[in-house]
Amino acid sequence: MANYAKRLWLEEDLGDDYRWSYRVSEVLFSGRSEFQEIDLVDTPTWGKVLLLDGKMQSTEADEQVYHELLVHPPLLHHSCPKRVFIMGGGEGATAREVLRHKTVEKVVMVDIDKVVTDFCSKHLARNTKAFADPRLTLINDDARTQLEQAPDGSFDVVIGDLADPLDGGPCYQLYTQEFYRNVVLKKLAPGGIFITQSGPAGFLSCKEVFSSIHATVRSVFPAVVPYAQHIPSFCDIWGYNMAFSDAAQTPLSAEELDARIGARLDGVPLHFLDGVTFQGLRHLNKMVRVALQEEKEVYTVDSARFIHGAGVKA
Amino acid sequence: MANYAKRLWLEEDLGDDYRWSYRVSEVLFSGRSEFQEIDLVDTPTWGKVLLLDGKMQSTEADEQVYHELLVHPPLLHHSCPKRVFIMGGGEGATAREVLRHKTVEKVVMVDIDKVVTDFCSKHLARNTKAFADPRLTLINDDARTQLEQAPDGSFDVVIGDLADPLDGGPCYQLYTQEFYRNVVLKKLAPGGIFITQSGPAGFLSCKEVFSSIHATVRSVFPAVVPYAQHIPSFCDIWGYNMAFSDAAQTPLSAEELDARIGARLDGVPLHFLDGVTFQGLRHLNKMVRVALQEEKEVYTVDSARFIHGAGVKA
Amino acid sequence: MANYAKRLWLEEDLGDDYRWSYRVSEVLFSGRSEFQEIDLVDTPTWGKVLLLDGKMQSTEADEQVYHELLVHPPLLHHSCPKRVFIMGGGEGATAREVLRHKTVEKVVMVDIDKVVTDFCSKHLARNTKAFADPRLTLINDDARTQLEQAPDGSFDVVIGDLADPLDGGPCYQLYTQEFYRNVVLKKLAPGGIFITQSGPAGFLSCKEVFSSIHATVRSVFPAVVPYAQHIPSFCDIWGYNMAFSDAAQTPLSAEELDARIGARLDGVPLHFLDGVTFQGLRHLNKMVRVALQEEKEVYTVDSARFIHGAGVKA
Amino acid sequence: MANYAKRLWLEEDLGDDYRWSYRVSEVLFSGRSEFQEIDLVDTPTWGKVLLLDGKMQSTEADEQVYHELLVHPPLLHHSCPKRVFIMGGGEGATAREVLRHKTVEKVVMVDIDKVVTDFCSKHLARNTKAFADPRLTLINDDARTQLEQAPDGSFDVVIGDLADPLDGGPCYQLYTQEFYRNVVLKKLAPGGIFITQSGPAGFLSCKEVFSSIHATVRSVFPAVVPYAQHIPSFCDIWGYNMAFSDAAQTPLSAEELDARIGARLDGVPLHFLDGVTFQGLRHLNKMVRVALQEEKEVYTVDSARFIHGAGVKA
Repeated sequence: MANYAKRLWLEEDLGDDYRWSYRVSEVLFSGRSEFQEIDLVDTPTWGKVLLLDGKMQSTEADEQVYHELLVHPPLLHHSCPKRVFIMGGGEGATAREVLRHKTVEKVVMVDIDKVVTDFCSKHLARNTKAFADPRLTLINDDARTQLEQAPDGSFDVVIGDLADPLDGGPCYQLYTQEFYRNVVLKKLAPGGIFITQSGPAGFLSCKEVFSSIHATVRSVFPAVVPYAQHIPSFCDIWGYNMAFSDAAQTPLSAEELDARIGARLDGVPLHFLDGVTFQGLRHLNKMVRVALQEEKEVYTVDSARFIHGAGVKA
Repeated sequence: MANYAKRLWLEEDLGDDYRWSYRVSEVLFSGRSEFQEIDLVDTPTWGKVLLLDGKMQSTEADEQVYHELLVHPPLLHHSCPKRVFIMGGGEGATAREVLRHKTVEKVVMVDIDKVVTDFCSKHLARNTKAFADPRLTLINDDARTQLEQAPDGSFDVVIGDLADPLDGGPCYQLYTQEFYRNVVLKKLAPGGIFITQSGPAGFLSCKEVFSSIHATVRSVFPAVVPYAQHIPSFCDIWGYNMAFSDAAQTPLSAEELDARIGARLDGVPLHFLDGVTFQGLRHLNKMVRVALQEEKEVYTVDSARFIHGAGVKA
Repeated sequence: MANYAKRLWLEEDLGDDYRWSYRVSEVLFSGRSEFQEIDLVDTPTWGKVLLLDGKMQSTEADEQVYHELLVHPPLLHHSCPKRVFIMGGGEGATAREVLRHKTVEKVVMVDIDKVVTDFCSKHLARNTKAFADPRLTLINDDARTQLEQAPDGSFDVVIGDLADPLDGGPCYQLYTQEFYRNVVLKKLAPGGIFITQSGPAGFLSCKEVFSSIHATVRSVFPAVVPYAQHIPSFCDIWGYNMAFSDAAQTPLSAEELDARIGARLDGVPLHFLDGVTFQGLRHLNKMVRVALQEEKEVYTVDSARFIHGAGVKA
Repeated sequence: MANYAKRLWLEEDLGDDYRWSYRVSEVLFSGRSEFQEIDLVDTPTWGKVLLLDGKMQSTEADEQVYHELLVHPPLLHHSCPKRVFIMGGGEGATAREVLRHKTVEKVVMVDIDKVVTDFCSKHLARNTKAFADPRLTLINDDARTQLEQAPDGSFDVVIGDLADPLDGGPCYQLYTQEFYRNVVLKKLAPGGIFITQSGPAGFLSCKEVFSSIHATVRSVFPAVVPYAQHIPSFCDIWGYNMAFSDAAQTPLSAEELDARIGARLDGVPLHFLDGVTFQGLRHLNKMVRVALQEEKEVYTVDSARFIHGAGVKA
């Protein structure tokens, strides 16, 4: 607050009757693609913030945590991840974390919006190096189309870093049982792992999409590990579902996880994640566990007909 | 939003440059004591909300979780809690949860503000029964004065349900090393357990007070178990420090905790807490664990001289 | 701000991208009728504020000015006003000002909402006396129905104190050429005067409704005097159209107006209005005068078909 | 609202408990001088808005009206204005309007902030031409220093386009009796006219500074004509005091004013001001007239000692 007088606020609805606002010290860039409005603003609270259609997508203050939890659990649980497919992830931070794994040889990142990927590769200093990494292939297209065209068994890890299924956009298709069964599972090599960001997972919010995404993943994959962590700039607990294609696989112990972090990563320690952390995150509380167990709704192409466009759960 | 047209918002600062607002559908009661302003409002987002000096104190939507975590871990870890002392807790919900334990014979609750306790005993339907329980002795006085006057070894559990130490008020005294050593520890009977709410405990916020409260409790008690949980209406992860007076005591396993919940409580199951939940909560993430380990600041009566009135950490 | 801590704000849109908020120190009463939501709140900025459907209807700080300008110009321009018909005016302040004229023998006030008139007669201290005045007949009905049923030539002054025509409600009918020609003009006795509040009349806002109301009144009455004044709580200049049924009548000079104020009123001087004031108000600025002159749109029952429900100007 | 998704609001306090907010579609430029923060933003409500220290200084929607009223009344009342001194006015619009007078040969504009004048000459398209006019001498200095150094009797019109006297800045000196008597009056040639913007002049706000500025000007000049107009982006009526150095001079009639507008200006008609308009503006309402008549406070260098820095009226 010290260094500027104007009171410029970004306001974001958190619900129908509930919103927050944070001061903007500078609007660094503004742009627009055929898909969305893109802004980069600086804020005293969150540092630099990437906005898509005016909603906080990622902040300097906490994107590291969100991305560590999206990327490292599946890669660390895999015996030797070499080929990774990222659906979405246009900001570049998901790729950045993947590329820290010494085993990784090839990353295919498919984000529909070229304006976003161009913008982020240029303006997000933390991710610039990742965009330039020769192991990365960046394709601006629909992630489903690209994944369908890949040979079966061609990826060790598939990562879903997409907008929520109920946002009213075409992302819904990428959260359906059919897509998981007919595409994702087939494209994974034996022992392959799938993970998807899974929306709000607090005890008050976990039934919005987290529980249904979990039920959908569970209906296709033999084993699913849900976990969740508070992301301050999302103003909620955030959920992830990590799915093993191999029924025999189980979560690593804290010690095993720590050992793999030490052995496989690029030498710079992880800020947030370690074995004990992951122990905490995957022991969900009773209310969320009950919600997951009781959830009956599986997202299918059929149910998409009703949801798509409305953007609200029936 | 459906059932009222006026746009009445309660606005609360979450930081210098960061605030939130939630719609108020009705102002149910407003009052004022010599200590603070007291309001009860109804909201579409949180249900009924108790405000002290305009800040959310407790909401129908999530107070259950906050209070389960403040009360049940220490009482369940105690071998047979009969006598409980509550510092603060004027709302009545802490007493309500304590009184669910069949072993409890006597609860002394000391809250300085009679207007608050009168108001809550009358207007908060969920807590009315607790206020009327014959096992409860309610005293409107300074909690320190009352605890000092109690005979040594006279309580099995002491619970701190007070405003944060840096809020600029006199509560700071109740978070000092001297108070813990000279009063709390002495008033606990052998095997006694102390717990205090400990402020924000997110990876971005845990150094505000959580880490120093932890360091202070740890400097007095032989064993301390910190844990934390997201409380949506506090817009952050919330921290607790549970301290054992007996160096030999360790956290219960999930199975033991579940067994004691089954055996000791009043028959109605806990909404939020069970053994697995507690496993999750006490495995703090790496960033918070590092902050706790590295914290050097212990609150003392001396440091209080600088902090009191300023309300900000030096 | 001094005497309360909570930050309760009433927010009102002033346009699509433009709003204001004022602090509420207390919600005094809240109610609801079949037509609208009714609230009385206290504020540091405006004193007590009456809200209908959450919008500021009248404030202690400036309602006197709005009502002096609605009532006294037409009554003072009339040679001897005895019988006055008020359409709307449920708050009671219009009647209060009318009843200050010693010549007035009978006031008929027709407001559709009994809950509002009951509420205001009880809770608005400034208007209580007016509601109890034996010269006042209060009828809760549609103003048009009642005025149609009155004998021709039975009123000296008709006052329109109604919601704006484009608010989407049935008030539109009471702003049409047909209503003015077939009802209002006929019910006025010779020398009778009609006045209607006429919406925002600033140089940026006068084309919303002010200019069309003026054109409509002018299409029926032989002489119309538009005038306007800033009403702070409406956040704009507010317009009035005063219409003479007698083509020979002209606005009074400042001296004549002052003389009539002295002779006819109840002894308490008017706060705001005098002869010089009215000179100022009826000399509209060039931009507004041009807008009035150029306005082609006359509100008719036919155009109502398109407007009603939409609430926006085609 | 149609063409952007992000909800970026500029918030401005209108009082302690009262504020407004307007959406910003784009931040066009941001800068900072040693005196203030400077921003140019685009808004759906006001078009382009110039902000100084985060407060609306001038908007595309209504700056024309503010500046017509500051410039043309004094120049039109002067018999033949050739030499004009502008105190402040860094935006350039005051000079722009002055330069429309064919009689004007020389304009000296003294604004302390070179960053503002550079910024506005470059970025405010409406004023670019004025900044380049050879009749304009722009000096970045303290306006008082420059005016003191000018020979006595060297200006026909002096225009004060400065921040309000109670804003806590050094502008207070330029509103004192001593400055008016010892500097402004002496620098005016015979028949010279002084005008100053005079702050809010509504019936609720006229005692903040308008009445005292009026009393101060009146204590020095033989004749003063106060007038006022609603400026929407200032959210209030705005006041002006025009002072004649010749006791015999009186306001022009509407016809005379219209004739001079026709004869002296550059051919493009004024948008807002004409003879009738000015008739309206200078007939102030009773509440404001009473406030002006009763005002006892004259700003002096002595009273400045108390006010300066505090920024509030004792």
